[in-house]
Amino acid sequence: MYKVKVYVTLRESVLDPQGKAVTHSLHALNYTEVTDVRIGKYMELTIEKSDRNINEIVEEMAAKLLTNPVIEDYRYEVEEVVPQ
Amino acid sequence: MYKVKVYVTLRESVLDPQGKAVTHSLHALNYTEVTDVRIGKYMELTIEKSDRNINEIVEEMAAKLLTNPVIEDYRYEVEEVVPQ
Repeated sequence: MYKVKVYVTLRESVLDPQGKAVTHSLHALNYTEVTDVRIGKYMELTIEKSDRNINEIVEEMAAKLLTNPVIEDYRYEVEEVVPQ
Repeated sequence: MYKVKVYVTLRESVLDPQGKAVTHSLHALNYTEVTDVRIGKYMELTIEKSDRNINEIVEEMAAKLLTNPVIEDYRYEVEEVVPQ
């Protein structure tokens, strides 16, 4: 069994209104040292072992469903979990 | 300057309808080896140095604005960035 962590971020060139809103709210709370906030997604997938390579599966799923390659970048980590 | 990465996840006991929806969509695409998906948030903050301890600032912001401590857990990483 694998635990896969996927981090999805907006590409640098894409505006992040949600991040801007959080920056403004932090300034309103007097955290003026915060100069930028970018907000992305974090996904944890539990995947059973199969015949296919785990990296191949994750990259295919990311391209098809988990991310929008036009505006988002992603990276992922695979951890093998051995059931006790 | 600091780059702070904050990972926010729903607590184990909290239902994650968005994750369930993604699991169903992956099954519909024939990725039946995926047994669970949990979806959280990933934030990248840029913070200028100040008199206050960076961990203290981040934990205070997390409690006040960035997370909902009733239903969410979080962890964070601080990276010091030296301008070139």
